[in-house]
Amino acid sequence: MSEKVKPESVSLYPLGTAAAPEPELLCIFGTGDFGRSLGQRLLQTGYRGVYGSRSPHSCGPLPQGAQVMSHAAAAQLASLVFICIHRENYSFLETLAPHLTGKVLVDVSNNLKKDLYPEANAEYLQRLVPGAHVVKSFNTLSAWALQNGPSDANRQVYLCGNSPEAKQMVVEVATKLGFTVLDRGSLYAARELEDFPLQLFPEWRLPLRVAVGLSASFFFYVLIRDVIYEYVEQGKDTSFRIMVSLANKVFPIVSLIMLCLCYVPGLIAAFLQLYRGTKYKRFPDWLDRWMLCRKQLGLLALGFASLHVLYTLIIPIRYYVRYRLAAITISQKNQTDEFVTGMAWRTDSYYSMGILGFALYLVVGITSLPSVSNALSWREFSFIQSKLGYLTLFFCTFHTYLYGWNKFLNHSSYKWYTPPPYMLALVLPSVVLVFKLLVLLPCVDRRLTRIRQGWEKDDK
Amino acid sequence: MSEKVKPESVSLYPLGTAAAPEPELLCIFGTGDFGRSLGQRLLQTGYRGVYGSRSPHSCGPLPQGAQVMSHAAAAQLASLVFICIHRENYSFLETLAPHLTGKVLVDVSNNLKKDLYPEANAEYLQRLVPGAHVVKSFNTLSAWALQNGPSDANRQVYLCGNSPEAKQMVVEVATKLGFTVLDRGSLYAARELEDFPLQLFPEWRLPLRVAVGLSASFFFYVLIRDVIYEYVEQGKDTSFRIMVSLANKVFPIVSLIMLCLCYVPGLIAAFLQLYRGTKYKRFPDWLDRWMLCRKQLGLLALGFASLHVLYTLIIPIRYYVRYRLAAITISQKNQTDEFVTGMAWRTDSYYSMGILGFALYLVVGITSLPSVSNALSWREFSFIQSKLGYLTLFFCTFHTYLYGWNKFLNHSSYKWYTPPPYMLALVLPSVVLVFKLLVLLPCVDRRLTRIRQGWEKDDK
Amino acid sequence: MSEKVKPESVSLYPLGTAAAPEPELLCIFGTGDFGRSLGQRLLQTGYRGVYGSRSPHSCGPLPQGAQVMSHAAAAQLASLVFICIHRENYSFLETLAPHLTGKVLVDVSNNLKKDLYPEANAEYLQRLVPGAHVVKSFNTLSAWALQNGPSDANRQVYLCGNSPEAKQMVVEVATKLGFTVLDRGSLYAARELEDFPLQLFPEWRLPLRVAVGLSASFFFYVLIRDVIYEYVEQGKDTSFRIMVSLANKVFPIVSLIMLCLCYVPGLIAAFLQLYRGTKYKRFPDWLDRWMLCRKQLGLLALGFASLHVLYTLIIPIRYYVRYRLAAITISQKNQTDEFVTGMAWRTDSYYSMGILGFALYLVVGITSLPSVSNALSWREFSFIQSKLGYLTLFFCTFHTYLYGWNKFLNHSSYKWYTPPPYMLALVLPSVVLVFKLLVLLPCVDRRLTRIRQGWEKDDK
Repeated sequence: MSEKVKPESVSLYPLGTAAAPEPELLCIFGTGDFGRSLGQRLLQTGYRGVYGSRSPHSCGPLPQGAQVMSHAAAAQLASLVFICIHRENYSFLETLAPHLTGKVLVDVSNNLKKDLYPEANAEYLQRLVPGAHVVKSFNTLSAWALQNGPSDANRQVYLCGNSPEAKQMVVEVATKLGFTVLDRGSLYAARELEDFPLQLFPEWRLPLRVAVGLSASFFFYVLIRDVIYEYVEQGKDTSFRIMVSLANKVFPIVSLIMLCLCYVPGLIAAFLQLYRGTKYKRFPDWLDRWMLCRKQLGLLALGFASLHVLYTLIIPIRYYVRYRLAAITISQKNQTDEFVTGMAWRTDSYYSMGILGFALYLVVGITSLPSVSNALSWREFSFIQSKLGYLTLFFCTFHTYLYGWNKFLNHSSYKWYTPPPYMLALVLPSVVLVFKLLVLLPCVDRRLTRIRQGWEKDDK
Repeated sequence: MSEKVKPESVSLYPLGTAAAPEPELLCIFGTGDFGRSLGQRLLQTGYRGVYGSRSPHSCGPLPQGAQVMSHAAAAQLASLVFICIHRENYSFLETLAPHLTGKVLVDVSNNLKKDLYPEANAEYLQRLVPGAHVVKSFNTLSAWALQNGPSDANRQVYLCGNSPEAKQMVVEVATKLGFTVLDRGSLYAARELEDFPLQLFPEWRLPLRVAVGLSASFFFYVLIRDVIYEYVEQGKDTSFRIMVSLANKVFPIVSLIMLCLCYVPGLIAAFLQLYRGTKYKRFPDWLDRWMLCRKQLGLLALGFASLHVLYTLIIPIRYYVRYRLAAITISQKNQTDEFVTGMAWRTDSYYSMGILGFALYLVVGITSLPSVSNALSWREFSFIQSKLGYLTLFFCTFHTYLYGWNKFLNHSSYKWYTPPPYMLALVLPSVVLVFKLLVLLPCVDRRLTRIRQGWEKDDK
Repeated sequence: MSEKVKPESVSLYPLGTAAAPEPELLCIFGTGDFGRSLGQRLLQTGYRGVYGSRSPHSCGPLPQGAQVMSHAAAAQLASLVFICIHRENYSFLETLAPHLTGKVLVDVSNNLKKDLYPEANAEYLQRLVPGAHVVKSFNTLSAWALQNGPSDANRQVYLCGNSPEAKQMVVEVATKLGFTVLDRGSLYAARELEDFPLQLFPEWRLPLRVAVGLSASFFFYVLIRDVIYEYVEQGKDTSFRIMVSLANKVFPIVSLIMLCLCYVPGLIAAFLQLYRGTKYKRFPDWLDRWMLCRKQLGLLALGFASLHVLYTLIIPIRYYVRYRLAAITISQKNQTDEFVTGMAWRTDSYYSMGILGFALYLVVGITSLPSVSNALSWREFSFIQSKLGYLTLFFCTFHTYLYGWNKFLNHSSYKWYTPPPYMLALVLPSVVLVFKLLVLLPCVDRRLTRIRQGWEKDDK
């Protein structure tokens, strides 16, 4: 992370003597939960800490070794002040402005919901104390995280502010506390940082909605064809098939469709560029948004695929299946109907394709783990995500075709004139694969590549 | 990582000329394994290196391009000296003290076991050469890691020391060598750093003991009920069931109980706070320790769950099972006993619950991968670990209840008056879920939230 | 990452005033794709950007708020210039040299293939403009990555250069843009950085070749024994077994052998050291190379093992298997042949060993995820990779022996005098385990340890 010299440090750590230097003193405004935890951690790390409080003599338990005094007095002593106060109570800081001039103020505050105030808390603070260097930071941490040290979701600290020197001082403190710091630029970014702790998987919303929508609609479609149809036409109650059989029809279908949805936007983009003949026109927003949630779409699809695998593997231990198999065996009595090699070929290839598809799928999924993808070069990453991804799609589609096999022509499979669900599932993948092949045609491919390297012509 | 200006650097890299500057010269005391590897790496990275040795003329093979001279002479040339010597041999450094004043000494030493000496090696070194700036670092690296560059468990380097400037110089060297540096504060942390390479999964000890203990006791319990009982009462030898059937009874039970153990401390904490009416009293140590090993408990539980899944999925290919199924089928002769829909419903839901529980469990497990959890905001992380975690617990408990079903009332299942193991396994989860529901009651929840936001009242 | 003071910054951000300082101005040569994206990102982050172009008035769409002027004019304004031009067009920079003296030039260029030119682009640039400080960086990023901010494979930025101050300025910019920077030393490293984006899993090549080779040869071996043999001798067409049965014979064999290949080099090294009586002689290159691809070998082996698991678990739902089971049952008619406890013991232990081996294998695999292994101390990492690894090997080998059982002596299993494949697969593991035991013998172990700590004797 970026830094400068800070004059203070020089005086604090005289070079040339080896004795442990007088540890740096930091000031904390506010003796609340966060303030206490922060102070405790600072003292543990070897800083000295002083609290500024409105009522220095009645502010409850504080970490051992911390002094507490009036805001003004405390501000005098330190060059860096943590403002652990709620925005509602900032106003009084205006009166302290003279004591805070030139100081670094760290705004750690969060709001209870988004857009509660016209301006970010940190910007508001800066306006109140124009003479100080406000840095927004630490607000993504919980008090618990401070008490127990960095771990899991609590290692990273974001900061933003206008004075690099001020930011640098905060970077140093945060690093000493064991956090890794990410500089998000000027104080304009404060609002973004303040919204961060409030968000809950924003980029997963859309993919999740798609997944739920698809699952629901296919579930009802299958319910009608498999349960209600049976009941109406033959009066048989097969409702028990809901728990496993139906689920195991819906999951693979949703998985396959969502896997396609990862590749559709890329194809649309390619054809847009071919059509426009340039890459410098921005894509429509919906396409951009779609592209940016491909990863989530893919991971959800992988989740559904895994469920499909598990549901398939428990088939033989199901009561229903064992019963049916026994019944068949018994019905055959003594002579057994002979063995159909073609059937064996088809079913075995069907399973093989499924397994290989799933295995490849896992590989693609694993490489989208942050730590793995960070270790890959961009070329390697896109090779896996695109080449292997399409191979996965091909295997899975082929797997489904083998499942359907000759049923496509078989009238009995069109109950109430509705096609079996897996046929519907096959539409999109087939289209995607065909268009992908189109893009791979030498002539098209050459044109596309030229367009995408368009910048090569630029310096002329 | 935190840094300052280092005067040396200015002279070393004159700004304004673009010619490659004279590379910085570093000194290494000790021509042992670590010293050689370190020197080699430094030279590869473009530093110049000089060795200090007691016998400059007979110290075995050294990296190409490295000079070797007396300790004193070597120390003169460099401003930074790596002490790659065993603590036992430090003493002679005292005599070198005058040559080392103002130098940065990097102590890379480790001990063979903990608490071998009253003070940390680095502190001892500092005492011997008070005029120098001792920095503890690189001790977590193996010579092999240095030879082959940072990789896997060898990317991170810790350091601590009293002089920030000195630390900064080490940070720079380490970074140039391709390591990421974590500053652990003042030299007081040296002991901790020296113990680090000696530790072997300290935070896993307790959870592992719990797991082993539970497995053992439940194994014997099941052994008695399933094998010994059979043998004594019916004289049947069912010992072969140990390998799979018994294992597959023990694993899920242990998994379920350990999953609960992740949530018990949280509940205890909640009720403690409700009872005390404050959150500022520290929790008893045992509770703190328990809370800090929840992650390990959970991961072990996930491991057992995975074993349970695998053991369940191989059931149908087992000789024993195939034999029994065939026997049943044959026994049924020509008429088949009719199909019980209720049974199908129950077993299928039983499997579904298990699969969904396991799937959720995997999600929770994946998000506890460092790189994944780092990418989550604190709110997102706790949402998954707590909300999804409890959902997992619910599914798994329900899964077990469906397994038991009506056996609870069935006398025959109480062999020798002992309840079947899964009933014992259900006690804790049921209690946990009930108490969780209590905590979620509006009145309780409101009180708890108020207590946890206690700090909000503080500034009044 | 390492850094110094940069005089520019002082003037740019006067300390003491809190008003947002005039943002730093950066210059970009080249208005191509990369140049545009870079500029856009810089402006978003709060920098000011000016483009240098040969035709300032006709250079297509540029990011909002960016000025464009002649190269010379643009260079005047900024102290840092991004050269987003193809190497082919560098020549004209020579004429600009006077305007570029003392400036920091960031070379972001890549080549279309390796060794296209005698010297690295960055070195060539430095030669053209000797008065400037050339820094190689950003070349591993794609324009797409710049437009959409750091993510996945795009968070890390490498840089190298001769002037630390210059590097520092680039580090700061990169960090502000949200990238993490890795300093790779002097400009000599430029070629390496320029080759980086061109490489495609170099360290996976060898292991993949081994895997493919082994799979192919064993596939044909099994094909001959299981399909062709059947056809020739009994005229039966069992070709359908290729898809699952054969695959499921090849995968575990390849997996087991490759798992061994991870441990062979370690053993060879050990015996080499024992033989030489020293550890300071370098290993032959082939051994070094072998050692460095152990991780990839292991992960591929894990992949094959997983396939083996999946192929095994679908066995019971295969048409062929169901058919055979039914046939057997029917053939048994009314009396069932009695139950062989020994058989049950053997098969169950066989499955158990397999499951435990696979589970351990997964643990070893998971700990080789970058983020996990980074969280481990060296001792912990080697404990898992070596101790647990050997345990895995043992389980898997035992698993295979149980599979063979008494078939070893059974003549009928030597079709056409060829041993069954699993016997071939057992050779290497058995050898490895035996030799490992040898190394663990107290006498050998003591000697080896002494040799490996050889350095301890050095300071005498």
